[in-house]
Amino acid sequence: TRQHRITLLPGDGIGPEILSVTVDVLKTIGKQFDIQFEFQEALIGGAAIDATGNPLPEETLTLCRNSDAVLLAAIGGYQWDSLPRHQRPETGLLGIRAGLGLFANLRPATILPQLIDASTLKREVVEGVDIMVVRELTGGIYFGQPKGIFETETGEKRGVNTMAYTDSEVDRIAKIGFETAQKRSGKLCSVDKANVLDVSQLWRDRVTLMGKNYPDVDLSHMYVDNAAMQLVRNPKQFDTIVTGNMFGDILSDAAAMLTGSIGMLPSASLGADGPGLFEPVHGSAPDIAGQNKANPLAQVLSAAMMLRYGLNEPEAASKIEQGVLAVLEKGYRTGDIMSEGMTWVGCQEMGEVLMNVL
Amino acid sequence: TRQHRITLLPGDGIGPEILSVTVDVLKTIGKQFDIQFEFQEALIGGAAIDATGNPLPEETLTLCRNSDAVLLAAIGGYQWDSLPRHQRPETGLLGIRAGLGLFANLRPATILPQLIDASTLKREVVEGVDIMVVRELTGGIYFGQPKGIFETETGEKRGVNTMAYTDSEVDRIAKIGFETAQKRSGKLCSVDKANVLDVSQLWRDRVTLMGKNYPDVDLSHMYVDNAAMQLVRNPKQFDTIVTGNMFGDILSDAAAMLTGSIGMLPSASLGADGPGLFEPVHGSAPDIAGQNKANPLAQVLSAAMMLRYGLNEPEAASKIEQGVLAVLEKGYRTGDIMSEGMTWVGCQEMGEVLMNVL
Ligand SMILES: CC(C)[C@H](C(=O)O)[C@@H](O)C(=O)O
Ligand SMILES: CC(C)[C@H](C(=O)O)[C@@H](O)C(=O)O
Repeated sequence: TRQHRITLLPGDGIGPEILSVTVDVLKTIGKQFDIQFEFQEALIGGAAIDATGNPLPEETLTLCRNSDAVLLAAIGGYQWDSLPRHQRPETGLLGIRAGLGLFANLRPATILPQLIDASTLKREVVEGVDIMVVRELTGGIYFGQPKGIFETETGEKRGVNTMAYTDSEVDRIAKIGFETAQKRSGKLCSVDKANVLDVSQLWRDRVTLMGKNYPDVDLSHMYVDNAAMQLVRNPKQFDTIVTGNMFGDILSDAAAMLTGSIGMLPSASLGADGPGLFEPVHGSAPDIAGQNKANPLAQVLSAAMMLRYGLNEPEAASKIEQGVLAVLEKGYRTGDIMSEGMTWVGCQEMGEVLMNVL
Repeated sequence: TRQHRITLLPGDGIGPEILSVTVDVLKTIGKQFDIQFEFQEALIGGAAIDATGNPLPEETLTLCRNSDAVLLAAIGGYQWDSLPRHQRPETGLLGIRAGLGLFANLRPATILPQLIDASTLKREVVEGVDIMVVRELTGGIYFGQPKGIFETETGEKRGVNTMAYTDSEVDRIAKIGFETAQKRSGKLCSVDKANVLDVSQLWRDRVTLMGKNYPDVDLSHMYVDNAAMQLVRNPKQFDTIVTGNMFGDILSDAAAMLTGSIGMLPSASLGADGPGLFEPVHGSAPDIAGQNKANPLAQVLSAAMMLRYGLNEPEAASKIEQGVLAVLEKGYRTGDIMSEGMTWVGCQEMGEVLMNVL
């Protein structure tokens, strides 16, 4: 029996219900693969603010550090939007990324054949799209100093953030980019704005240099504005994309939306060592929270990514992924991906039909 | 007879050929509306680098300043990509924006019914899309100080750019945003990343404040990652978007590509006073330069924007815009927008058929 200690962070909105389904799925899988999961739950985001005043209590971070992987659901909601920045749910998310050193964020955007009609793009444009965005997650403009709102000499205010990367910060994420590309089709596109930004020029130079170590990877560079266009024009040209924190935030969301079914997309955030964090790409959807309407599959697929990238349990991961395809194939759909002729199920029921095929 | 002095900046690649067609169109329109154009040509971009070593010679800037409007074609090409930054074509473009104080960049993304099939998105998703992106153009991370590549204490390099906005910089672009929305459907969406960036928090606060002066405008705020998604998911929800320099660069290109026919899209860059600059959204397309294959219509429509926003000649502008629709209606297409059953024409011929319908 292999043992893995998982910290569960249900967070806000639909978080608790999708995570609860996912825990059931993990227990089922655990029995089949002789894996024993030890689950411990902790507070983050709005839930943590309400309970402690802090979106990331120290205790949560400690529990996460003492576990093998962290499974996060979703954070945020209107009621916390007007709090000061250090008390907002998002600050908890940024804090846990920094606190666990999760510098590499992997965001797949894969078109599932069963859901291809959910895309707003034409079938022939998106059929077969399978993109992995590797986003730097603990640097760039999200964390660069100086930042803040300062008074200028003329008495007006000036808001400031700093987009910065050092050689070593670029190197370590570029390495993940190249290794990811190697495991996929061997094509890596690095996205920057080197025609305008010095920080992008450094990024491009370092990625190019690192490319010499990966002669088997076909490396290209693209400006971020063009990448945003090309994702719409011809997404199939991309395999693996590596980019900075801000550009990755924007492009991974655009790429995700190409699929039309953002309720299906997982993500993984990894550090140099220590536990990784796994979470759906979608948000906390407060409008449908607690109504058993949420799609739990992105959360379930995040657990699969956890098994694969965080716990070295690739067979168990594949089993879950195949199970998800199977329930889609059988026609089960939550409201967000519902279409004619399919069987509408709730969050809980989706979990049950999934466990039936595992 | 009204007189207008226009500085022409043909630039690189397909620039000269599309601008030459546009000048012919302007001459034709001038006769009809009793407008006398005085054209003066100047160097910018790669052409200027080759001739003078400087992508924006002082003489060019002086000529521009002494004119009523500037009509730019396109800049850039592979042969200048590896020059040091201060000698690159893009630096000329950034220089002229700063030099003329062109802080407001208007980028329409309009789906023309005749070209709707060029979109990679489904017809029902893009039919009727008519978005105006108002992008701040002389501030933000494009120009913020400090910037550069610095050595750190540990001896590695650190690339740095600064995203900064002051109250007054936000106010003046927000004003253009509100006024633009007023002239359109009265809906303004301000895009930022206020959940992470201090500079965006300042942006959002100032835009909200300014909104009180425009009770007739329906103001909303959206995070940039969500905006990139929403452009793909449901572009019709947008009318006018106002945003900073970097986010505007990315989102206006994504919005443009929704139309599938970027060879059709013009833009206007305006300052507080002095001449505006008008240019197509597309680039210099060096691969088809000099082959009479380029689509001149974005340049022609940029001249229409010049007439409307820069020279206060709205009737002449409308005449050109209607002419463009008429040639599309008649089935004339350059290669980039060609489809079955249409008549394929070259750059020059497109100009001729257009002048025939004016
Ligand atoms: C909630 C927000 C801070 C976060 C980010 O910008 O990184 C989110 O958009 C994401 O992509 O995970
Ligand atoms: C060429 C480049 C400097 C420019 C920009 O980033 O502003 C271009 O992408 C644009 O949008 O006009």
